[in-house]
Amino acid sequence: MTSLQKYNVAVVGATGAVGEKILDSLNNKQIPINQLLLLSSKRSAGTEIEFQGTTYTVQEAKPESFEGIDIAFFSAGGSVSKKLAPEAVKRGAVVIDNTSAFRMDPEVPLVVPEVNAQDIKNHNGIIANPNCSTIQMVAALQPLKEKYGLSRIVVSTYQAVSGAGNEAVDELRDQAKAFLNGEEMESNILPVSGEENHYPIAFNALPQIDVFQDNGYTFEEMKMINETKKIMHDESMKVAATCVRLPFFTSHAESVYIEVDTEGLTAADVKEALSKAPGIVLQDDPNNQVYPTPLTAEGKTDVFVGRVRKDLDNDKGFHLWIVSDNLLKGAAWNSVQIAEATIQNNWLKK
Amino acid sequence: MTSLQKYNVAVVGATGAVGEKILDSLNNKQIPINQLLLLSSKRSAGTEIEFQGTTYTVQEAKPESFEGIDIAFFSAGGSVSKKLAPEAVKRGAVVIDNTSAFRMDPEVPLVVPEVNAQDIKNHNGIIANPNCSTIQMVAALQPLKEKYGLSRIVVSTYQAVSGAGNEAVDELRDQAKAFLNGEEMESNILPVSGEENHYPIAFNALPQIDVFQDNGYTFEEMKMINETKKIMHDESMKVAATCVRLPFFTSHAESVYIEVDTEGLTAADVKEALSKAPGIVLQDDPNNQVYPTPLTAEGKTDVFVGRVRKDLDNDKGFHLWIVSDNLLKGAAWNSVQIAEATIQNNWLKK
Repeated sequence: MTSLQKYNVAVVGATGAVGEKILDSLNNKQIPINQLLLLSSKRSAGTEIEFQGTTYTVQEAKPESFEGIDIAFFSAGGSVSKKLAPEAVKRGAVVIDNTSAFRMDPEVPLVVPEVNAQDIKNHNGIIANPNCSTIQMVAALQPLKEKYGLSRIVVSTYQAVSGAGNEAVDELRDQAKAFLNGEEMESNILPVSGEENHYPIAFNALPQIDVFQDNGYTFEEMKMINETKKIMHDESMKVAATCVRLPFFTSHAESVYIEVDTEGLTAADVKEALSKAPGIVLQDDPNNQVYPTPLTAEGKTDVFVGRVRKDLDNDKGFHLWIVSDNLLKGAAWNSVQIAEATIQNNWLKK
Repeated sequence: MTSLQKYNVAVVGATGAVGEKILDSLNNKQIPINQLLLLSSKRSAGTEIEFQGTTYTVQEAKPESFEGIDIAFFSAGGSVSKKLAPEAVKRGAVVIDNTSAFRMDPEVPLVVPEVNAQDIKNHNGIIANPNCSTIQMVAALQPLKEKYGLSRIVVSTYQAVSGAGNEAVDELRDQAKAFLNGEEMESNILPVSGEENHYPIAFNALPQIDVFQDNGYTFEEMKMINETKKIMHDESMKVAATCVRLPFFTSHAESVYIEVDTEGLTAADVKEALSKAPGIVLQDDPNNQVYPTPLTAEGKTDVFVGRVRKDLDNDKGFHLWIVSDNLLKGAAWNSVQIAEATIQNNWLKK
């Protein structure tokens, strides 16, 4: 296949928070599309969505929907991916899956193109898009790992509600309005929609993202730990994570402590490596109060890094503040980058 | 002096966010008060405040205000403390100072009563109350240090706007209202009122608290690092901090990674030590989604700890989530606890 070819593209979960952004990203990337198929659950089928001047009616996703599809983006939840991604692959599509369904499957490449695009070529039909909070972190740390080595990561996250979907976005807005009006806040979605207890996120912080595992870590924290090692191809690297949901709509921020392998580096060395890295924008000028924030990163496809400091005790230790739009680089944009790399390298068909 | 004695008490900064809470805390502690003097800047003088059924008129703080005062609480900013605290001491008062003016002065004890109440007896008239984010962290970590040793702390904070005063509280409320009404947010206070640039805090996160130092750390981060070592009497302990302002009103939260000196501990051992510690409440039951949050800690004087986990790579590493009301244990309550310990141990006069 050449870049002149056009592709039949399906978007599963087209009416969701990430699905919308996949359409935006497809538009901005100008991946040549022959036929576009928008799919969803039965409940959302019938919704009309405009894309590049044409109005599309969303259809219910079924196994036979994928006949003739070249690339299928999945972002409709893990259970939908588990059921329908193999059906799409069976029919010849390459699936780029934005759920956690296949991420840790040893047969499935887990890809952040700036880090491990080469892994795509080993796909067996499914390529997994990592967790949002993982993507921005590995994108920022890979240039440091390549240049200086990386032995340890300790991350504390500051995550936006849109990572929990449009219902969580509405919940934050409704709760904030209620609170400011002196009314009771109603909690039905966060921290985890399927769990028993719900707590207010407006004017609050919830140290739970996804369900708890037997070891006391949340699934989100284990995703960051395990996915980082897989993407960076380094099982010996020490990775620890604490994930916290916060009352902002878009962009995740991360306070990251790292230990490199190289002695005697300065913060300037770390900034230098970051400033040349693809997809990374250094926003680090304390004298002028320049650093990334969730609001300034919103709507942008880059990963923003600031507050780069050398640890005061450990010669190999550094601190960074990493921010990126969780729906774009953390989800839709990275998925479309995967599609682009797959096409450009002729990795669509095995 | 015995506990039957009554004291002449002054509160400098009585109209501020912390001043109000000092009055609440004095009320709850029932420190026997003979005369209460409420002081402020010239601008706020004349304000009327009710305390235990009596209405007090706030007076402008002047050197001679402190004649006959036994205990003076200061929370009106560092410059006021620098000017007037020595005047109060000269007139025989013991000053409990809630600003950063004297905290790192080797002649001034820096006290969290659960950690180092004994330091009070070395005072020369001034006893310093630590920074809010420091207090709750050392209160939670001291029992672990005593039992298991403590060699390293890496903390990322999640701090409420009330730590920046009542103007910052109003700013968050006004910005949130504007945003929800689709209006422009106006930023005049945060991240630091005296600095050139101001950014929205509503639905955002600002990785700057207090001004930047030459080493790239903020003053808030350096306070956490230096004060922790001073309070815990351990200059060799490694301490690193990243401080972030967030859109909630009250209570600071902290994601803390520690390394203890003892091998082979479990998370249960750490929880056991915390469950017996004074002023600490363990809220840690992942199976029932129990963990502390800023909203649930608000208005309470304890330090709440949850999400206790053993690091997955380092046998001596543990992660904790520490939350406390920044205006109470982080400021007013701790100040009044210092007064109480000073009185009870007959340390008021040298």
